[in-house]
Amino acid sequence: MVSPSDKRRQYVTGFTGSAGTAVVTQNMAALWVDGRYHLQADQQLDCQWIVMKSGQDQVPSISEWLKSVLSSGDRIGADPKLVSADQWLEWRSDLAESGIKLDAVQANLVDAIWNEDNGRPKPNPRPAFIHDIAYAGQTWQEKVGVVRNELKELGLDGIVVTALDEIAWLLNLRGADVPYSPLVKSYAYVSLQQVVLFVEPLKLKVAPIREHLESDRCPREQPDDLCVEIRRYENVFNDLPRLTAKANSVLLPSRYAYSGGVSFAIYETIPADKRRTSPSPLILLKATKNAIEVEGMKNAHMKDAVALCDFLSLLQEQVHEGKVQWDELKVVHTLDEYRQQQDLNRGPSFSTIAAFGPNGAVIHYRPSLETNRIIDNSSFLIIDSGGQYLDGTTDVTRTFHFGRATQRQKEIYTRVLMGAIDLATLVFPDSIDDTRIDVIARQHLYSAGLDYLHGTGHGIGSFLNVHESPIQIRIYGKVGHHFEENYFFSDEPGFYQENEFGIRLESILRVINKTFEHQRDGRFLGFEVVSLVPFDPYLIVPELMTFKQLHWLNHYQAMVRIKVGEELKRQNRMRAFYWLMSKTRHITEPCHRSKNGSPGSINASSFISRIIIAALVSVQLAVALLMSS
Amino acid sequence: MVSPSDKRRQYVTGFTGSAGTAVVTQNMAALWVDGRYHLQADQQLDCQWIVMKSGQDQVPSISEWLKSVLSSGDRIGADPKLVSADQWLEWRSDLAESGIKLDAVQANLVDAIWNEDNGRPKPNPRPAFIHDIAYAGQTWQEKVGVVRNELKELGLDGIVVTALDEIAWLLNLRGADVPYSPLVKSYAYVSLQQVVLFVEPLKLKVAPIREHLESDRCPREQPDDLCVEIRRYENVFNDLPRLTAKANSVLLPSRYAYSGGVSFAIYETIPADKRRTSPSPLILLKATKNAIEVEGMKNAHMKDAVALCDFLSLLQEQVHEGKVQWDELKVVHTLDEYRQQQDLNRGPSFSTIAAFGPNGAVIHYRPSLETNRIIDNSSFLIIDSGGQYLDGTTDVTRTFHFGRATQRQKEIYTRVLMGAIDLATLVFPDSIDDTRIDVIARQHLYSAGLDYLHGTGHGIGSFLNVHESPIQIRIYGKVGHHFEENYFFSDEPGFYQENEFGIRLESILRVINKTFEHQRDGRFLGFEVVSLVPFDPYLIVPELMTFKQLHWLNHYQAMVRIKVGEELKRQNRMRAFYWLMSKTRHITEPCHRSKNGSPGSINASSFISRIIIAALVSVQLAVALLMSS
Repeated sequence: MVSPSDKRRQYVTGFTGSAGTAVVTQNMAALWVDGRYHLQADQQLDCQWIVMKSGQDQVPSISEWLKSVLSSGDRIGADPKLVSADQWLEWRSDLAESGIKLDAVQANLVDAIWNEDNGRPKPNPRPAFIHDIAYAGQTWQEKVGVVRNELKELGLDGIVVTALDEIAWLLNLRGADVPYSPLVKSYAYVSLQQVVLFVEPLKLKVAPIREHLESDRCPREQPDDLCVEIRRYENVFNDLPRLTAKANSVLLPSRYAYSGGVSFAIYETIPADKRRTSPSPLILLKATKNAIEVEGMKNAHMKDAVALCDFLSLLQEQVHEGKVQWDELKVVHTLDEYRQQQDLNRGPSFSTIAAFGPNGAVIHYRPSLETNRIIDNSSFLIIDSGGQYLDGTTDVTRTFHFGRATQRQKEIYTRVLMGAIDLATLVFPDSIDDTRIDVIARQHLYSAGLDYLHGTGHGIGSFLNVHESPIQIRIYGKVGHHFEENYFFSDEPGFYQENEFGIRLESILRVINKTFEHQRDGRFLGFEVVSLVPFDPYLIVPELMTFKQLHWLNHYQAMVRIKVGEELKRQNRMRAFYWLMSKTRHITEPCHRSKNGSPGSINASSFISRIIIAALVSVQLAVALLMSS
Repeated sequence: MVSPSDKRRQYVTGFTGSAGTAVVTQNMAALWVDGRYHLQADQQLDCQWIVMKSGQDQVPSISEWLKSVLSSGDRIGADPKLVSADQWLEWRSDLAESGIKLDAVQANLVDAIWNEDNGRPKPNPRPAFIHDIAYAGQTWQEKVGVVRNELKELGLDGIVVTALDEIAWLLNLRGADVPYSPLVKSYAYVSLQQVVLFVEPLKLKVAPIREHLESDRCPREQPDDLCVEIRRYENVFNDLPRLTAKANSVLLPSRYAYSGGVSFAIYETIPADKRRTSPSPLILLKATKNAIEVEGMKNAHMKDAVALCDFLSLLQEQVHEGKVQWDELKVVHTLDEYRQQQDLNRGPSFSTIAAFGPNGAVIHYRPSLETNRIIDNSSFLIIDSGGQYLDGTTDVTRTFHFGRATQRQKEIYTRVLMGAIDLATLVFPDSIDDTRIDVIARQHLYSAGLDYLHGTGHGIGSFLNVHESPIQIRIYGKVGHHFEENYFFSDEPGFYQENEFGIRLESILRVINKTFEHQRDGRFLGFEVVSLVPFDPYLIVPELMTFKQLHWLNHYQAMVRIKVGEELKRQNRMRAFYWLMSKTRHITEPCHRSKNGSPGSINASSFISRIIIAALVSVQLAVALLMSS
């Protein structure tokens, strides 16, 4: 996610997707996009652009293509501030095989042609603000202390922190420089002696924030008497060599999960003999929410559920009545407003997705004027949305149908739900990584010959990024990530039938320790569901589910009814309260008992018939007895 | 598995385990063993040896240790014929970092001190024999044609085949050079022009085998007119350079799954510019059983089940009677005899495991005179065994209890069984690898805080190795392997309570294609159970199981009853027949229905009580009516 004034690739290509790399040579131009965007790139690019659909057969990688169209001795340029060091080194060595040189272009070439005169937005002037200890749960001084301990353990003198969510987490600082995530554009350097923050001075102009960072009394003599030295954002490249002059080893974080690692420009500021590369230790520190953050995440999800239930009850009522017309964009707009009514809300945590009917089958669909659909009772509506709250970040997806789903559609909804439940109830040793458990969420779709082409889960921040490292539940993931207590992540299986409909069910889970009476060696982990939005009982085929799954579902729906119901009454949102009551009704577990494999209750009913017959016989006997007497 | 005359490491160390590496310096000696053998190595080695327990904290690797005890300029020797090229190159580069040289010692140093005078067994003189087309299903000429097509597709001129099971498979040749696996010690070279087999001439002295290989009329003018040129076993190192003189590229198979890849000695025979390294293409060709082999595997498992049921019925009867004393070694001995009574049997496929009580908790236990236990009704007996049949190889494990297992033991048995069933019934896209599905077999143990410290499955050959590449179902596996139709592999979850008991249930599964009415993109695979030995219904807690699992179990037990029962009657083994009937009785599915989470039939019974009350009321009414009339 980048700010509008940084959307350079979008400016030169016209492609608005969240990921993609454009390459322009003297006589050709090509854009690489992944599977999510094959269709969208075809629609948005004009014929001057070659669309490179990564993942398809015969589609070359960027360096393969460059090697095929350039010659030995040719030079290709890139902005080293915008390319990760890992990526840069890979490209450089690939291209060197064909004698092609990768040059660092210091003045960005897009900046040379894109300016305010031809529509470039101004950078956002909104200032940074303090993330209060009441929500952060730990002072930045404590966090710096923990990071320094990590540095000491790794035998390092310092770390350059460039991931914006890591800086925000470390210094209990938030801002508005990037859409949907409360981040401040900045760099940081943390050594055993110093903490330096490189940031546009205007962002910190208010006095309390400088007090928070103890900046005006910096530097100090004792390294333990902590203060954050503020330097200008653009000075980072000049200053890092001097700041690290006495250091023997400086950590330059490498790529890991959602974290791209340092840029090549940062990498080049540190001499080769001092560079140490490995994933930033801040990733796991930040992922592990402290007790205050855990409480905050739960509160945020409760308020989020209130907003969603209130909105959904309005939507269902009005779609059923048919007097007010609803479309996807109106859903987005109205739902965002409902969230804003909740305490501590600071807007959505990502661009709200409302996808009706065939639009639901486009996995990363976001409604636009061109694609906007009217919502009626003919198909499924997926709503995938979340909020930023000072006390936590939310992300939840539910799928509804305001008319009658077909039996097959209900069966698929049920299979998606069964996968979501099985993952939520999984218990596993802490040595198992996130690539090894995805099959648990997919198995019931698999057994009907179905699947979904996206991951099953992602970590989530606390008033930070909605996609946070390290968790990435991906069955094809090459690198695994381990779980730790109080990580939060999403559990979101789905199903997509092209040109027809989509179903996705997403809840946030918290990682908890599990203990057992007869526990063996090693630690076991499990999950606790944090999202509190009901599933639709009218879309569930209980006969497909196991007793354990149905029992979990009824328990979950009852918990939602009690917790959210109470809050809805407190906030006097009675339409939503009655809607919630109807959605959380108890589902009777069918009795699975038959000899021919189809679920039913043949034995029980034949037993009952036998009792009835016995009763009738008794009546006859009684009658006979009486007659004879 | 190596022949007794090749057990050099055992000779110098005294350690009899199947895996381990001994390193001897001028003043020290150390043996590296993996987790399976930590205990055994402690028991078998004297105090001159350091036991290096791989996997434990602070235990160095071989090269780390050598770097710590040797100095720059020192030399370490090894027999290049007995170390894989992958391993050699890894060691060589690790040691070079400290200036230590790895030298290829041509004359094996153990051979210099171990000879027939001090007890070295003579090499096995038994000849090779033809694997009949009636069992192989495909001529060796067809197989060579397929291998040549693979070579052409990969742009290769030839391949050096050193894995004994690949040579046996390729040439439809079997032998007795190695215990439990019908292999012939040999090397092969297959090019687009030639097929050369390096083998001790005495092994092929009978005429039919030379006719089978068309060896006496070799070489011929047309490469398509196939013949196998026989050369002396020990000439391979001299001859390969000349045989490959005109080739541009020669494949030297690298390490993959159970296949170690070529030795460093073979690797060195081919000049660096001609060497190509990747896993042998014969691995996947061999793993995919043809229609005749599939039929053979099924027949072999049927006969194997007859032998096992017959033996188990005898064992149960005699343990119950208590007149004849049974111990583990007697089980091994007698069961091997029962297998030999079956058609086409050629002995066990590995050293039979019978492990009673606490011995069952030792995962790779094999009974010996020192550990042998008497079998009674106080604990579990694990029997893990298999047979080599001309038409297939088997491997099956069942666990029995001749007395009364505790409720907790039954619950664990049931959880192991539930995992075995869930894996057997899994359906999944063919793009999913074997490391991603292991959790399916473990999940029900996990949910009770339990686990087992071994893989869940291995590929199996057709009258070949009982552990065959590529399948290795390992939740911690770093390299995944894909499934293909007609691969055969084991499904063997377990549980081990140290000093108390062990449980393991192993069946062989066949990979089959799955098709669905509403199939999406991509191919789905599933499994078919090939083993036909009943599970013990007296150890099952049906309340823990889902309807689907119980239904599968009843279906499986009924299939075993019908198929094996018929064959037992045909072979007039009536004791086994009645035993089989009792073990395969139908298990009634309990009705899962309750509000408080504990399985039961509260709702149904309250409904029944209401009917009874209604019936009683009717009686009273009828009586009243009659009285009044």
